Amino acid sequence: MAVAELTSPTVAYTHTPTRLHSSSQLSLSSTHLSFRLRRSFRPQNTRITCSVDQVQAPVAVETKKSTDKSDCFGVFCQTYDLRAEEETKSWKKLINIAVSGAAGMISNHLLFKLASGEVFGPNQPIALKLLGSERSFQALEGVAMELEDSLYPLLREVSIGINPYEVFEDAEWALLIGAKPRGPGMERADLLDINGQIFAEQGKALNAVASRNVKVIVVGNPCNTNALICLKNAPNIPAKNFHALTRLDENRAKCQLALKAGVFYDKVSNVTIWGNHSTTQVPDFLNARINGLPVKEVIKDHKWLEEEFTEMVQKRGGLLIQKWGRSSAASTAVSIADAIKSLITPTPEGDWFSSGVYTNGNPYGIAEGLVFSMPCRSKGDGDYELVKDVIFDDYLLKKITKTEAELLAEKRCVAHLTGEGIAFCDLPEDTMLPGEM
Amino acid sequence: MAVAELTSPTVAYTHTPTRLHSSSQLSLSSTHLSFRLRRSFRPQNTRITCSVDQVQAPVAVETKKSTDKSDCFGVFCQTYDLRAEEETKSWKKLINIAVSGAAGMISNHLLFKLASGEVFGPNQPIALKLLGSERSFQALEGVAMELEDSLYPLLREVSIGINPYEVFEDAEWALLIGAKPRGPGMERADLLDINGQIFAEQGKALNAVASRNVKVIVVGNPCNTNALICLKNAPNIPAKNFHALTRLDENRAKCQLALKAGVFYDKVSNVTIWGNHSTTQVPDFLNARINGLPVKEVIKDHKWLEEEFTEMVQKRGGLLIQKWGRSSAASTAVSIADAIKSLITPTPEGDWFSSGVYTNGNPYGIAEGLVFSMPCRSKGDGDYELVKDVIFDDYLLKKITKTEAELLAEKRCVAHLTGEGIAFCDLPEDTMLPGEM
Repeated sequence: MAVAELTSPTVAYTHTPTRLHSSSQLSLSSTHLSFRLRRSFRPQNTRITCSVDQVQAPVAVETKKSTDKSDCFGVFCQTYDLRAEEETKSWKKLINIAVSGAAGMISNHLLFKLASGEVFGPNQPIALKLLGSERSFQALEGVAMELEDSLYPLLREVSIGINPYEVFEDAEWALLIGAKPRGPGMERADLLDINGQIFAEQGKALNAVASRNVKVIVVGNPCNTNALICLKNAPNIPAKNFHALTRLDENRAKCQLALKAGVFYDKVSNVTIWGNHSTTQVPDFLNARINGLPVKEVIKDHKWLEEEFTEMVQKRGGLLIQKWGRSSAASTAVSIADAIKSLITPTPEGDWFSSGVYTNGNPYGIAEGLVFSMPCRSKGDGDYELVKDVIFDDYLLKKITKTEAELLAEKRCVAHLTGEGIAFCDLPEDTMLPGEM
Repeated sequence: MAVAELTSPTVAYTHTPTRLHSSSQLSLSSTHLSFRLRRSFRPQNTRITCSVDQVQAPVAVETKKSTDKSDCFGVFCQTYDLRAEEETKSWKKLINIAVSGAAGMISNHLLFKLASGEVFGPNQPIALKLLGSERSFQALEGVAMELEDSLYPLLREVSIGINPYEVFEDAEWALLIGAKPRGPGMERADLLDINGQIFAEQGKALNAVASRNVKVIVVGNPCNTNALICLKNAPNIPAKNFHALTRLDENRAKCQLALKAGVFYDKVSNVTIWGNHSTTQVPDFLNARINGLPVKEVIKDHKWLEEEFTEMVQKRGGLLIQKWGRSSAASTAVSIADAIKSLITPTPEGDWFSSGVYTNGNPYGIAEGLVFSMPCRSKGDGDYELVKDVIFDDYLLKKITKTEAELLAEKRCVAHLTGEGIAFCDLPEDTMLPGEM
């Protein structure tokens, strides 16, 4: 196998070749260091401004496909023939699901849902390919042990590893949950850069080794821009296949509308989250319906809709941390399961779901080249189309413009990671959702 | 409604009437205090010996049925008519599931499994009645919020409370997970007493307010003796309805046998865990089968079976804590789901499952009046029968006698909580499983 030498993105300050593929650890590239150095000269409480010159795009470089496999774990190393057995011979072909941040709390809920058949159905055997870090490797073994002890018949393979070039091999789904949490005093620009590097590397790995039609759901925050970085680093995978998770926001919005209207949550439909998974997100009550009627006809308190509803959705995560002392791992995992199910089952007639997807070709006039949450429908084939029959009013347009502006600013801030030249961070305020991981 | 005044168990040392029903907090009864006081005079590292005189049994006393309800939560307070709707009118009647320790990690996995329909099936709407403590009440609200945000269509009611007399009302299932963990320096006798009091109170509450045919699964440790205390304090509920969870041990045993035999875990059947959920537990490889053949014919390494296998099952929990830094909440929740499913679906032909159940009338010659893990079969009606066609050899009988002796000793140690007179603790060694909650 030919081994191509990888070099890091060329930056104007220094040039340090690194082997991105040879280790799962983040290479603290010169780009990152220059961010750090500049920060020390910046006065407190100013707008964050930084730029990184970049001559060469990091995308589409040839990558080494490692010959090492990630390791199968324990009982999951057994071989057998599903076709030879009465109970399992009618099963579908096994699918490979890669999960990053596999030792974290969200995964600890999600993996067991996947293994139980709740998400992909009772005839779909699955292989879980778990990506952790060197630091979390023992915990990853613990997770694999608990999966063994759960005796799920559909869970046929579990492998664990710390190198995305190994773990993502032949992945048909990649659920990218792992991201660095924000440390004390860390600005959003720093977070964008640190996590951006993770997702740039993972995009490259997916590009090199995953199934050519892999579906990618980015959960690690800031998830929209991480998804954008990821897809820009995976030019051989359709950009349409990348999602940023806004389903938890949609679910929370539905619940708040139900509460206000005095109905059970199953009566609320057609809820769109527009834009960024941040406090600029726009839960759309103009197109949403309750018992099939426009929300504004059911909830007469329009002041509540305009002034309180959005904030209640945004602040839900922070409130939960206050109550529960932890962030909302369980309901996040449920919403990831929902997001997958929405792509593999036909969307109910007349309804839709929200997902952060690539804006190119969108019918709403939203700027191209972003990952932006919009209303989607699926035939259940893993693909989706954007919903055309939505309406806008001035209030909604104004809000959408604001979240669009934020995503454009985030995009400028990670240009060095998307191959779009000079990064320039000009984030006016911190809109990170509380407790986001 | 007539209100009967409750008094605490009469003990020889002091007599302190307490209203057991008026608060969810544990009344630190005089029995407990006398334990504590005596401990300070006991030299270190001796056998634990204590006795509590008791003149009057605590069972079968008339209890107050509180008129207060536990509070419904948020969107689950909505009213609607399932029969009036096309999608839900074919659903079964809603069932009430009470869960104690509802703010803990095991519940955090289990509640979402219950709500998803994975356990009781896709046509069974459920009400979750969550029992916490004053200390955990905010966390309980957090759990309820996450359940709201998950939009599970089958989850129709969630109520939270700290008084078992309210929370257990009309419960058809009671999953008793909450128990005090062992504090630093706490002996097993102390733990038996502290947790025994919780389960005595919860038994009384079930007796007073739960469905007359409630099925009770005790998970909080020491679970066998806690289940015994619970059933003894609930004389109006069939003793047969009380289970102590040994299903995680069974699952772990199956996995270890599969690994040793080089097969996938679905090939292992007929595994019994005999006795106590402690290190004296007996994973039975004599009756177990792999691909339908006796294990001893498949695994020729009988030394491994006799000397290593049992220890591997017992030590699994401790190993997991080492790896994962936490105890095995996810796989415990899976095993609780398995235990429930085993009672509501017919047991596959020729197979069985393990559960800690009341020994009265058992065909194996095990001492009566214990909660002892034994092989069970169910028609799927919530009930079970003990399996008759099992074989014993000297090795198995010797092991069973040892775990039986331990449970008899634990029983003597909690006689003051079961209405059987004078408690006398004579526990020869500490057999608590590592990391048990």
